[in-house]
Amino acid sequence: MIRMALVGAGFIGSVHAANLASHPGVDLIGIHDVDDSRALELASRTGTTALGSDDVFDPSNVDAVLIASSTDTHATHLRRAAATGLATLCEKPIDLDLDHAVEVVGDVGHTGLPMMVDFNRRFDRDYAEVARTVRSGEIGGVELVQMTTRGPALPPLDYIAVSGGQMRDQTVHFFDLARWITGEDPVSVFAAGSVFTDPRMTDLGDVDTSVVTLRMPSGALVQIDSARRIGYGYDERIEVLGSTGLVEAGRHQVGSVTRYRAGQIVGDGMHAGWFERVAPTYRAALDHFVSAVETGTPIGPALPEALKAQAIAEAATRSLRTGELEPIGYPVPTSAV
Amino acid sequence: MIRMALVGAGFIGSVHAANLASHPGVDLIGIHDVDDSRALELASRTGTTALGSDDVFDPSNVDAVLIASSTDTHATHLRRAAATGLATLCEKPIDLDLDHAVEVVGDVGHTGLPMMVDFNRRFDRDYAEVARTVRSGEIGGVELVQMTTRGPALPPLDYIAVSGGQMRDQTVHFFDLARWITGEDPVSVFAAGSVFTDPRMTDLGDVDTSVVTLRMPSGALVQIDSARRIGYGYDERIEVLGSTGLVEAGRHQVGSVTRYRAGQIVGDGMHAGWFERVAPTYRAALDHFVSAVETGTPIGPALPEALKAQAIAEAATRSLRTGELEPIGYPVPTSAV
Amino acid sequence: MIRMALVGAGFIGSVHAANLASHPGVDLIGIHDVDDSRALELASRTGTTALGSDDVFDPSNVDAVLIASSTDTHATHLRRAAATGLATLCEKPIDLDLDHAVEVVGDVGHTGLPMMVDFNRRFDRDYAEVARTVRSGEIGGVELVQMTTRGPALPPLDYIAVSGGQMRDQTVHFFDLARWITGEDPVSVFAAGSVFTDPRMTDLGDVDTSVVTLRMPSGALVQIDSARRIGYGYDERIEVLGSTGLVEAGRHQVGSVTRYRAGQIVGDGMHAGWFERVAPTYRAALDHFVSAVETGTPIGPALPEALKAQAIAEAATRSLRTGELEPIGYPVPTSAV
Amino acid sequence: MIRMALVGAGFIGSVHAANLASHPGVDLIGIHDVDDSRALELASRTGTTALGSDDVFDPSNVDAVLIASSTDTHATHLRRAAATGLATLCEKPIDLDLDHAVEVVGDVGHTGLPMMVDFNRRFDRDYAEVARTVRSGEIGGVELVQMTTRGPALPPLDYIAVSGGQMRDQTVHFFDLARWITGEDPVSVFAAGSVFTDPRMTDLGDVDTSVVTLRMPSGALVQIDSARRIGYGYDERIEVLGSTGLVEAGRHQVGSVTRYRAGQIVGDGMHAGWFERVAPTYRAALDHFVSAVETGTPIGPALPEALKAQAIAEAATRSLRTGELEPIGYPVPTSAV
Repeated sequence: MIRMALVGAGFIGSVHAANLASHPGVDLIGIHDVDDSRALELASRTGTTALGSDDVFDPSNVDAVLIASSTDTHATHLRRAAATGLATLCEKPIDLDLDHAVEVVGDVGHTGLPMMVDFNRRFDRDYAEVARTVRSGEIGGVELVQMTTRGPALPPLDYIAVSGGQMRDQTVHFFDLARWITGEDPVSVFAAGSVFTDPRMTDLGDVDTSVVTLRMPSGALVQIDSARRIGYGYDERIEVLGSTGLVEAGRHQVGSVTRYRAGQIVGDGMHAGWFERVAPTYRAALDHFVSAVETGTPIGPALPEALKAQAIAEAATRSLRTGELEPIGYPVPTSAV
Repeated sequence: MIRMALVGAGFIGSVHAANLASHPGVDLIGIHDVDDSRALELASRTGTTALGSDDVFDPSNVDAVLIASSTDTHATHLRRAAATGLATLCEKPIDLDLDHAVEVVGDVGHTGLPMMVDFNRRFDRDYAEVARTVRSGEIGGVELVQMTTRGPALPPLDYIAVSGGQMRDQTVHFFDLARWITGEDPVSVFAAGSVFTDPRMTDLGDVDTSVVTLRMPSGALVQIDSARRIGYGYDERIEVLGSTGLVEAGRHQVGSVTRYRAGQIVGDGMHAGWFERVAPTYRAALDHFVSAVETGTPIGPALPEALKAQAIAEAATRSLRTGELEPIGYPVPTSAV
Repeated sequence: MIRMALVGAGFIGSVHAANLASHPGVDLIGIHDVDDSRALELASRTGTTALGSDDVFDPSNVDAVLIASSTDTHATHLRRAAATGLATLCEKPIDLDLDHAVEVVGDVGHTGLPMMVDFNRRFDRDYAEVARTVRSGEIGGVELVQMTTRGPALPPLDYIAVSGGQMRDQTVHFFDLARWITGEDPVSVFAAGSVFTDPRMTDLGDVDTSVVTLRMPSGALVQIDSARRIGYGYDERIEVLGSTGLVEAGRHQVGSVTRYRAGQIVGDGMHAGWFERVAPTYRAALDHFVSAVETGTPIGPALPEALKAQAIAEAATRSLRTGELEPIGYPVPTSAV
Repeated sequence: MIRMALVGAGFIGSVHAANLASHPGVDLIGIHDVDDSRALELASRTGTTALGSDDVFDPSNVDAVLIASSTDTHATHLRRAAATGLATLCEKPIDLDLDHAVEVVGDVGHTGLPMMVDFNRRFDRDYAEVARTVRSGEIGGVELVQMTTRGPALPPLDYIAVSGGQMRDQTVHFFDLARWITGEDPVSVFAAGSVFTDPRMTDLGDVDTSVVTLRMPSGALVQIDSARRIGYGYDERIEVLGSTGLVEAGRHQVGSVTRYRAGQIVGDGMHAGWFERVAPTYRAALDHFVSAVETGTPIGPALPEALKAQAIAEAATRSLRTGELEPIGYPVPTSAV
């Protein structure tokens, strides 16, 4: 049983709150938010209490903290958790600015604390099974990977404006998965993108539809397509071609009902949005975190690994701009402390 | 918000306890079990208290009761709930003895309380969608129904001995679904069964594998196959053929991962057992009950409806024995009070 | 290379003609039909000649004959082929009257000639694979079989009137498959049917929608549903539940294109009719016949086997009328010669 | 009825011969091959005669010619057919050397004869349905296309050596499909490839596994992955993402049989090779050609269109070498005559 506090009472904070409250291995100490009333409201709904920021980072009451506040506060909270010796599960990204993120990771790294970025896709049942299959050797050596990430609607433009762009915001999950599944760090990236939804996306220097090619040291090739607005719901998938077989994590439909009519067979549709699709991963990621903290086993994507996914997104963003193949450099975080 | 108490702290009781505890519309007052320590243990795990039997049925503290105790106690608890004016959600069956069940339903019927038998399959997302589709007229009039219910392993023989037999214990869910989906009460039943698992099943007068044919007043025909022990996990499905189309609730696999190898394509398997397959239905049934109690809308399978499914099981059991087509009689519960 | 003649130049005759003409192991000698001009027309289309009936059964020019003329002529042609020593591939049934069919089989049986009824479903790639799987023991002992046979439209009533009824005309293919796949002869049958399409079906003593239960000596149970008119194309399927697994020959769609839209996933529909679904089986059955004739290996469903499927249809027809479980008796054809 | 001659009696020639012989709209005049005995053998198998090369191109006896001889003879035969006024259906490519191919197309273009390259994938039932769906506007404007082309085994290295490389030999079919389905000519291409099968592929300057990105003038993006040797049979697929929906031509399995076992569900595998997968397209392409010749309607991929697919392959081959994004230039064939 570990004592945990939650920072952030927005939408994703409320998801974490429910998981923390019902987790048999977690004693949810309380919830903090910059907006007190929001913290109070969520705390009462989950049968816990609202906390001031000092209480969250009080090691005498708290063993671990889950950071689900706004992106620009992640770095500060990570430093504070490290300073007070708390294990940390942090929403991605560490910081939108890669240099700053590298600095933070360097600075907190010496603590040896379990600190993990919540790249929740790793905890998707199907992706985990794909990774397990690849590692088992069942499909031989990895030669080609296809990934698809497509959402139902363009997020609000003010979100887009601070999101860092499609590579850093959406595709980054699949950069992490590509590394995790293949066990390799890509050496170069080519990205091409277009705007089909709203011409203001172009003004923001962003794209809504893109394709990415990664080259791995082994020669394995990875293709990722990302789309912000598709007409048929939410869709993400992965297939990995190995030298002796293929493993695929296929589409998720909302149900298993099929209607047979003259000339057509109609199945249930896709999930309405990303949350419906990946909801169980938050709980699974928490399971992993709690178990790693309790048993001292290695933690999911630890901060330095999360940095690597960010570094790929950085190079992919560059390629979108230059139209050229871009090499990927991986920063080495070093402690300034 | 309704105040609810739970009777029964066994396996299915603990499932109900978790749903009750996390339900936003329910205040879980406490848990009662004939075994005090079992009640205490479950209560502490769910953050509630253990209750004596008088407290459970105390209308000043409780609005509704969920009965998940052993089958032979259902009738008594139903009568007591009715006597003290509590809405009731009761595990099936009302009583294994149909005559006794009819008597109970007759006696409690005059109260007008919301009293429902937890035929949870009605709350399966896919079956509910099938029923909705049929009622919408999308497939025309119902002409033929195929149902499949198959479990992975023969239950322990001492369970079988008191279960009432395959028709009353396993197939009864699908008798209820057949009525619910078609909106008709079958007039006759033919059943044939065999024993493939353990010869002692024959000594118990039971079968482990059976097929049933129901004839509906409209001429629609229903086929149900039931198996106690299959080698590939848990499998249940429904398809309804209408005059203009077909709707089918298909198999549920544990995931959406597929492996492609030389000469074969290997998908994820079926669920290991019935619980994994139908787990969400318990929560959905509770949602329905709570909402019906709060808003006064008609309740799912009310007691008299549950009786009808039992009556079909009774006739099917008879047909298994005689090898003949059997007419189905529906008892009319009348109040003795 | 065997020399073959074709009797019958109607629709199914023309299908056979194309297969005979393009078969590398067959020299198509010619085509006979009671309607000379029809024979001529088909012969010219297939690059062969029209034959008189004497030429068809002339053993100096012909090794084998394929009988695809009208049902009421099968018996006569079979006798003549036997008398002149020709191997024979005959469309089902031998004769609509079971007693007469038994007599014919008895009379021609002593010849030892390869004589086969074209129960073409046995040569469907998927059903053959199901049979192979069952025989290999991969799914253990057979316990339960589900079969579905459903057509898109009620045949013309004048066809129905002479068809022998749904059991003898449509379901009989699956009676043969049930025997072939399980390797058992059913001992009893229960059938129930309804009329949903045209009330004149009732006047004809026939049904358009029916369910059948067969009991095998081993205790295995078989369910077959048959429908004459469904709204979604042509549909036939088989699943066999064994003690350790299940094998299923699933639906056939016309293609593998899927359309994803908001809230639904739309696949290609089913085949329009029986012929599109089973077209390849005619060629496969011919392959089997030619190979058996050439190599002397046992032939597909030889006449006595075909009789057994007819005997089951006979009992099923009786059960439809009586509403009772009916025992199945198998006639023993004896030579009157 | 058009009179056709076939040039080439190798494997693909024999496929064409069977289709020509059985086509109701074609009178197969004869077959020519540089190897007389091969022509004779195929002619006798198909019930036609072997022809000298002069007879093939004799307009008094022949209306159209099908060229299925070795690649290096296509150009010569095309010129001769044009010179003698024969409609022509020619295996791809026109000539491996793009400049030479452009010259040929320029020279024969003024004849106005129906001359078509057999890009048979356009005649695949599923791809044609995808193209129809896209053109109908059902999925809105095209935004992203995913294509997969994967074969079971590396072709012999001596074939590879003269094949022109993966882009010109394998991927070129999908360059043609990309143009055909989207109705756009790509402006740039990025290709990346690797060698996983045989190091001698590298010596030959070729790759066995590659990914390609095409950019269309509308901004639509196309990803194509090509693999020479996969462990699970033959696999090709297409999906087209439009602004309002997705249409997908999915995998083809050899059958529809599924086996359910403990923990896994095993479907039939993929086709063994490309021929099994695309066999019906040869007949469908011939249908199109015959019908276009007879009715004077526009012909499938006419020579200038086929050139465009070759031009894309050329640029893709360049990108594989340079590692850079390459612009695509389209040659304009002009008549030198």
